[in-house]
Amino acid sequence: MTATLYGLGVGPGDPELLTLKAHRILTASPVVAYPAPDTGQSFARAIVSGFLAPEQIEVPIVVPMRVQRFPAAEVYDQAASTIAGHLDANRDVAVLCEGDPFFYGSFMYLFERLSQSYPCEIIPGVSSIMASAAALKRPLAARNDVLAVLPGPLSNEELEARLKTADALAIMKIGRHFNRIRVLLERLGLAACAGYCERVTLGEERIMPLSEVSDETAPYFSMILIYKGAEDWIRALPAGRPTDAE
Amino acid sequence: MTATLYGLGVGPGDPELLTLKAHRILTASPVVAYPAPDTGQSFARAIVSGFLAPEQIEVPIVVPMRVQRFPAAEVYDQAASTIAGHLDANRDVAVLCEGDPFFYGSFMYLFERLSQSYPCEIIPGVSSIMASAAALKRPLAARNDVLAVLPGPLSNEELEARLKTADALAIMKIGRHFNRIRVLLERLGLAACAGYCERVTLGEERIMPLSEVSDETAPYFSMILIYKGAEDWIRALPAGRPTDAE
Ligand SMILES: C[S@@+](CC[C@H](N)C(=O)[O-])C[C@H]1O[C@@H](n2cnc3c(N)ncnc32)[C@H](O)[C@@H]1O
Ligand SMILES: C[S@@+](CC[C@H](N)C(=O)[O-])C[C@H]1O[C@@H](n2cnc3c(N)ncnc32)[C@H](O)[C@@H]1O
Repeated sequence: MTATLYGLGVGPGDPELLTLKAHRILTASPVVAYPAPDTGQSFARAIVSGFLAPEQIEVPIVVPMRVQRFPAAEVYDQAASTIAGHLDANRDVAVLCEGDPFFYGSFMYLFERLSQSYPCEIIPGVSSIMASAAALKRPLAARNDVLAVLPGPLSNEELEARLKTADALAIMKIGRHFNRIRVLLERLGLAACAGYCERVTLGEERIMPLSEVSDETAPYFSMILIYKGAEDWIRALPAGRPTDAE
Repeated sequence: MTATLYGLGVGPGDPELLTLKAHRILTASPVVAYPAPDTGQSFARAIVSGFLAPEQIEVPIVVPMRVQRFPAAEVYDQAASTIAGHLDANRDVAVLCEGDPFFYGSFMYLFERLSQSYPCEIIPGVSSIMASAAALKRPLAARNDVLAVLPGPLSNEELEARLKTADALAIMKIGRHFNRIRVLLERLGLAACAGYCERVTLGEERIMPLSEVSDETAPYFSMILIYKGAEDWIRALPAGRPTDAE
C-alpha cells in the first residue's frame, strides 16, 4: 500500500521534450490526471496523448477558465478526493503538469491537499521560459545577470519597479494583459529589446520582436523575454517567422 | 552539407532527466563535445556516459577551473575551430550542457562563435532551479509571485537590493561565496526561510535548511532557494537527509 502521487513535468509542448523519467512514469502509471478547460481539450493531455494506453484510467480536472476567483477550491477538493481514492486502492497517479510542476503550476493545489497523506514525487520538467529562450536563440541569463520572472497580472507599478532593476526578464501569463504590458514597455524604453514567444516548441510557434505583434491580446501560451541592450539583435529577428520547431 | 550544431540540455544530473529529444540527438550525433575541468572528469559527460557509443568522436573542452578572468577566450576559440572542422566535414556536433543550455550556461561562448556560420539548434533542458524545488518539495513560484535568480558572485549590496524585493529567490553559483551569503541572509532575516540544495537528483544529493549547513564553503553544484514567510516549513525539513533521489 505505497502508491505514489507523481507531479509529472511534461515540458512546454513538444512531446519529445518529456524527460526519459517522465516518459517511464507516465507509461507505467495506471491513473493519469490532468487539468482540462471546460471547453476544448487539455493541453497537458494533448502533449502526451501519443504515449497513453487505452487501459490507463484518466482523471480530467475540469477547471472553469473564465472563473474570476482562481483557483476554484471545490474543483481541487473534488479532484484530490478522486485521486486519493486511486492511491488508497494502491494505484499510482501521475498528474500531468505543463512545463515544470513547481514553476507557476496548478499542480500545487493538488500537492497541498495530498502531500501530507501520500508519498509524493515531483519530476521536474523543461519549463516554457527555457524553451522560449531556445526558440529565440539567445541566452536567457549569462555570467552575473540577475534574472526576474514577472507574472503579467501584476500592476504596472509593480512591474515597472522590477523591470528597471533586473538585467534579463521574462513576463509570463500575459494573455489579456498584453496590450497594457506592451504600452508599459514602450514607455520604459524596453519594447525594442523584447521578444515575443507564442506556443513555443509547437507546430504553430510564433517568435518575433514584440514591436511586430499586431494583436491587442495574446493567447494564454505566450510570454515576453526582455534582453536589455539587445535592440539590434531583436530588430533582426524575423517577424513572425514560420519557425523551425520540429 | 548541412551539419547542425546542437546545444543539448542534459538536465541537472540524473541521466533520466534528459529529454527524449536530447537522447535522440545525442545518440545520433557522430561528435559529442563537453566542458571538462583540467582535473577530474566532465560532469556533463558523466551524466550521459551510459548513452555514449565507442564510435562517437569526443571533444572535451578543457576549461581551467581556477582561472580568474573567465571565460578563457583562447579555450573557446580553439574548441570552436575544432567543432567547425567537424561541421565542415558534415558531422553534426552535440555540445553537452548541464541543465538548460541558455540558463547561465557556458554553451553561450561556443554559440556566439559558431551560430553565425552554422545551423544551430538549442534543445532546452531541465534546469537545476526546477530540480532543486522538486527536491525540496515546495513550489518555487506560484500565482503572482515575482521570482528572482541571483548569481552568488554579486556584491552584498546588489544581492541585498534584490533579496528585499522578490517573493521567491534562487541564488546560484554560491561556491566560495557561501559563507558571505549566509551571513547576509542572516542579517536580512532570510536565513530561516532558506533551503540548501546540493547535487540535486544525484545519489549524493543533500537537501536541508540553510541553517543546518555546517560547512564554510559549498561545492560548485549547489544553490539556495528562499521562500519568504516559510520559516516553519523550512524548519521541518530533515537536516541533510539521505534523500530519495533515484
Ligand atoms: C501557469 S504558467 C505555467 C508554467 C509552466 N509550469 C512552465 O514551467 O512552463 C502558464 C504560463 O506559462 C507560459 N507558457 C507555458 N507554455 C508555453 C509555451 N509553449 N509557449 C509560450 N509560453 C508558455 C505562458 O506565459 C503561460 O501563461
Ligand atoms: C553555470 S550555472 C549552470 C546552470 C545550468 N545551465 C542549469 O540550467 O541548471 C552552474 C550553477 O548551477 C547550479 N547547479 C547546477 N547543477 C546543480 C545541481 N545538480 N544541484 C544544485 N545546483 C546545481 C549551481 O548553482 C551551479 O553553481
